[in-house]
Amino acid sequence: MSTVRCYDCGRSFAFPERKRCECGEPLWFDHGEVAWPDRRDPGMWRYADSLPAAAPAGVGAAAGGTPLVRAPRLDTGGVELYLKDEGQNPTGSFKDRGSALAVASARERGIDRVGTVSHGNMAMSTAACAAGAGLECTVCVPADIPEERLAHIARYGPEILRVEGEYGRLYERSLELEGVDFVNSDTPLRVAGQKTVAYEICEAFASDVPDAIVLPVSSGGQLSGIWKAILELRAAGLIDERPRLYASQASACDPIVRAFGADRREVSPIEGGETIAYSIANADPPSGNRALAALRDTDGGAVSVSDDAIRAAQRRLARKGGFRVEASSAVAYAGLERLLERGEIGAIRDVYKRQGSHSTR
Amino acid sequence: MSTVRCYDCGRSFAFPERKRCECGEPLWFDHGEVAWPDRRDPGMWRYADSLPAAAPAGVGAAAGGTPLVRAPRLDTGGVELYLKDEGQNPTGSFKDRGSALAVASARERGIDRVGTVSHGNMAMSTAACAAGAGLECTVCVPADIPEERLAHIARYGPEILRVEGEYGRLYERSLELEGVDFVNSDTPLRVAGQKTVAYEICEAFASDVPDAIVLPVSSGGQLSGIWKAILELRAAGLIDERPRLYASQASACDPIVRAFGADRREVSPIEGGETIAYSIANADPPSGNRALAALRDTDGGAVSVSDDAIRAAQRRLARKGGFRVEASSAVAYAGLERLLERGEIGAIRDVYKRQGSHSTR
Repeated sequence: MSTVRCYDCGRSFAFPERKRCECGEPLWFDHGEVAWPDRRDPGMWRYADSLPAAAPAGVGAAAGGTPLVRAPRLDTGGVELYLKDEGQNPTGSFKDRGSALAVASARERGIDRVGTVSHGNMAMSTAACAAGAGLECTVCVPADIPEERLAHIARYGPEILRVEGEYGRLYERSLELEGVDFVNSDTPLRVAGQKTVAYEICEAFASDVPDAIVLPVSSGGQLSGIWKAILELRAAGLIDERPRLYASQASACDPIVRAFGADRREVSPIEGGETIAYSIANADPPSGNRALAALRDTDGGAVSVSDDAIRAAQRRLARKGGFRVEASSAVAYAGLERLLERGEIGAIRDVYKRQGSHSTR
Repeated sequence: MSTVRCYDCGRSFAFPERKRCECGEPLWFDHGEVAWPDRRDPGMWRYADSLPAAAPAGVGAAAGGTPLVRAPRLDTGGVELYLKDEGQNPTGSFKDRGSALAVASARERGIDRVGTVSHGNMAMSTAACAAGAGLECTVCVPADIPEERLAHIARYGPEILRVEGEYGRLYERSLELEGVDFVNSDTPLRVAGQKTVAYEICEAFASDVPDAIVLPVSSGGQLSGIWKAILELRAAGLIDERPRLYASQASACDPIVRAFGADRREVSPIEGGETIAYSIANADPPSGNRALAALRDTDGGAVSVSDDAIRAAQRRLARKGGFRVEASSAVAYAGLERLLERGEIGAIRDVYKRQGSHSTR
């Protein structure tokens, strides 16, 4: 697993020689061997044989392995719903999977310092995993970050760079910085770490698969990881069918939904508006095109939801399931409801019914 | 598992006939059959065969199964330290194990409403698990609860009773209330749920055991659960030795430490002072005597730590391990450091060294 490849044009490079493909698209690791593991390591490290680094010391060793929960009171439109509770990661978000792997890999490659561009979950997650493994960490945050959130990040002791203006462009600039191994949302390491959530979901149903996976989408990195896992599992013969992937975004900032709706192969940057789901409000998603490819390849779709719908979903998740989630997570449930209303995943209902009658389930 | 028994005088009663033993001590379920399970249910429900109810719907199904993490940068005094990250429960605390089981049992017994007396983690946890399983929930909180914390609890939609004055006595009064199945800190169901953390720890090391388990202690309910698991595992021949149990409390409110230090068999209520570890500041712990019995029986100990030591531990856990924990959790690490300073667990160091040389580890 020392080669990275472009999902689109197929060019390959030695890792970590390049950050992006010559064609401009993000890279991911070449497929390794995938198998359902016998090992019982904690969390995502059960799949260590399919990952480019071994578990790090400290909190990163606790990433992944989150529960897949049936919450029948949240079933809607005839769908038998399972929730993957990624809040049960060590710093409370799915980002820990990628951060843990990035830190583990940096450590194995003799790198002293990792970094990230984030003002939220990814900053906390990267700083925490670095602290546990004894790596230095640099976090670039916008100058106007709320003090409370800054305090959460600062607790792990990273170097914090407050960046005035042009925060959106910092992603590109970070790729050029020397001396820091930046692990932003769509780097091959982060995508490799985050694909483990789909290993876990698919293994729980194997060899059957869920009919659809609906997730909130920002940069497109997480969706890329899920797609990659599905491609790997299919190639290895571990699953027979592909779950359809559905991207859900807040209406105020939904460049991927717009591009998908217009049947484009490229996401154009938009002027994003304000939304309570600020942590997924990415007006120029670096893995946007790859996200579109994932939706097309799995015969999935994309949907936008209003802040009111997000608030209603958040409330329902707490009152009917016992799940307290941030607005950006509730976007997935709001998206599912919208897709059902529109009849876009009516077919799923039938398939779920069929699955419900399996005697082994 | 329909009989509850007094750990002290041995009297037994049909569950749920009595809340406390005639002698005044808390009760726990009679030992069931314990075995390392083959099943792979999520979290604590792996041990469902040793529990008095099956997994509930919703968030309670995701309780337990938390990672046991090596964080070598936190090793101190020659001790090889493992951290059990109970923050990775669905509502962020170990309380979910007991809440989930209590809700599951209430549901199986046809009860409509559960309740708890708490102004923090236990209130959130009980309300969340009840919501997921479709039960009503009543939460008694002190009238002066901070609004922010109240909002966290209210999100799950419980009935909230704000109680003026005498909050400390509400525990006893709640035992008499009709129509609500109160699952406070030391009820048999909560103790049964919370014992699963010790199943998980011991299974990870089996058939060896950790030399010591240091934990923060408030009511004594969690310590009781851990002790009970150890007794069960010993009786079943699954572990050969007992880990020593150490209770750590904040100096400002340490009735169990005082009683242990004075070699008393009963905990006397004290005038507790202010501490940043407010969520474990219990001046009159309902399972205090049982906690003392657990410490004695396992040849363990008890230690108090200052707020400064707690703050320093909190900082170290974040910066050296990547763990962000509330003050009351940091009390465990501060306690370990103090026990090492005092030479009280010097013997453990040697045992850990021995364990380190096992070729199978």
